[in-house]
Amino acid sequence: MSPVVDVADPADPRLDDFRDLNSVDRRPDLPSGKGLVIAEGVLVVQRMLASRFRPRAMLGTDRRLQELTADLQDCDAPYYRVNAEVMAEVVGFHLNRGVLASASRPPELTVEAVIDGARTVAVLEGVNDHENLGSIFRNAAGLGVDGVLFGTGCADPLYRRAVRVSMGHALLVPYAWATAWPRDLNTLRDKGFRIMAMTPDPAARTLADAMAEVGDQPVAILVGAEGPGLTETAMRASDVRVRIPMSRGTDSLNVATAAALAFYERVRFEHPAG
Amino acid sequence: MSPVVDVADPADPRLDDFRDLNSVDRRPDLPSGKGLVIAEGVLVVQRMLASRFRPRAMLGTDRRLQELTADLQDCDAPYYRVNAEVMAEVVGFHLNRGVLASASRPPELTVEAVIDGARTVAVLEGVNDHENLGSIFRNAAGLGVDGVLFGTGCADPLYRRAVRVSMGHALLVPYAWATAWPRDLNTLRDKGFRIMAMTPDPAARTLADAMAEVGDQPVAILVGAEGPGLTETAMRASDVRVRIPMSRGTDSLNVATAAALAFYERVRFEHPAG
Repeated sequence: MSPVVDVADPADPRLDDFRDLNSVDRRPDLPSGKGLVIAEGVLVVQRMLASRFRPRAMLGTDRRLQELTADLQDCDAPYYRVNAEVMAEVVGFHLNRGVLASASRPPELTVEAVIDGARTVAVLEGVNDHENLGSIFRNAAGLGVDGVLFGTGCADPLYRRAVRVSMGHALLVPYAWATAWPRDLNTLRDKGFRIMAMTPDPAARTLADAMAEVGDQPVAILVGAEGPGLTETAMRASDVRVRIPMSRGTDSLNVATAAALAFYERVRFEHPAG
Repeated sequence: MSPVVDVADPADPRLDDFRDLNSVDRRPDLPSGKGLVIAEGVLVVQRMLASRFRPRAMLGTDRRLQELTADLQDCDAPYYRVNAEVMAEVVGFHLNRGVLASASRPPELTVEAVIDGARTVAVLEGVNDHENLGSIFRNAAGLGVDGVLFGTGCADPLYRRAVRVSMGHALLVPYAWATAWPRDLNTLRDKGFRIMAMTPDPAARTLADAMAEVGDQPVAILVGAEGPGLTETAMRASDVRVRIPMSRGTDSLNVATAAALAFYERVRFEHPAG
């Protein structure tokens, strides 16, 4: 059980993991700084506790402590119990979620570890917006995607905003960074994956047709940033180009929404085991 | 062609439509105030020009004027040409989209006008987040939805943030407010619509099954707010309860994403005419 430590002084250095969360240069979740992973709110803290990211400290109100009691049985990181005013002074703004947890970054997973045994993986290229990244993890978790791979140009999925928007699923859905892009797609192909590149190109196959064709074969779904989309290099390294049937004008959908449609097409009749 | 009027004084009252855009009490897009509709950026201004929302004034840089020249041929609202500094001083922050247009609110459309001839409509209950509302309009436009109806508890789709997130489609996809909720669903039923209520209930039918069953019959897709979902009253007033096959935990997807999956299931093989 986490030891509960009452703290009344917002300057107490034991609270430093949570100080100035919005500060441009001091925020603790920047990889260039402490590189901590920050979970906000009861649900996301619970997910952190269930993840490979082990909390090293928590900061929160008594009310949130009560809500987390069962979850903290097997945790030995301290829970710094404060009132709302102290909490606001430490983090630099009023945070109505009432609880935060910090974790150090564990070693990154390898591509092989993420795809081993996976049926469906998402592969992202150039997705540099934290909100979109977070949404993709949330959609991946909800729609049966087993893992996420990052090609070049992607933002940090452990940035606070990404973790929050993902509802904590950025901590639970395994991900890895490609070491050679797009050559790592060959690793997927060698493992039997069919590699689908999403594009607005009307000459591409519909998601429905392409997904029906693969049946039980493992699938990798490649998506690129909103606007530019996938690079031609990544497209050429894939097996098939797929599109969403679109109407009215030339807008693409938001990248996280487009990815969700592909994930859904894969599981539309029933959710996978697990 | 819009007359171009050079303005150098940020205090010029002709720019009042665009003043203090982020001010809590003075912002011009509040229904309680001027109730103006504000379009931001070249793409959204172009969509406003193509919509039933007729611009009454524009404020922008010379560069954006050049980009809009062709679109402004049939417009007689003035284009107030300013430099970036004047623009920032008027709106209250640096707006890098470089152009704004204002429109008065035209009379609301009726439910009958929106559903007449429609094949697919989205019906929202309690969707009170402007970003989600905007995303739903964007997804509706991209995935062939003909109109949107609002039950109780929905936010204003013409709020600046909603229009921006919708990429201007809040101005183009017709919508109407229900006058009696959920009784207005009977109007849909009388017009031959099959009314599907989205729910996370595992006892509900899958979207795929329910949508296959309706074939060419018009469909109304009901979605409720994230968290509470649809009220039981709205559920009972619908014809069938439908669900997305979900995995891993009890999270629902974001409401705009859930709606997108339903819209997609309706058009997954080909986009509709129009």
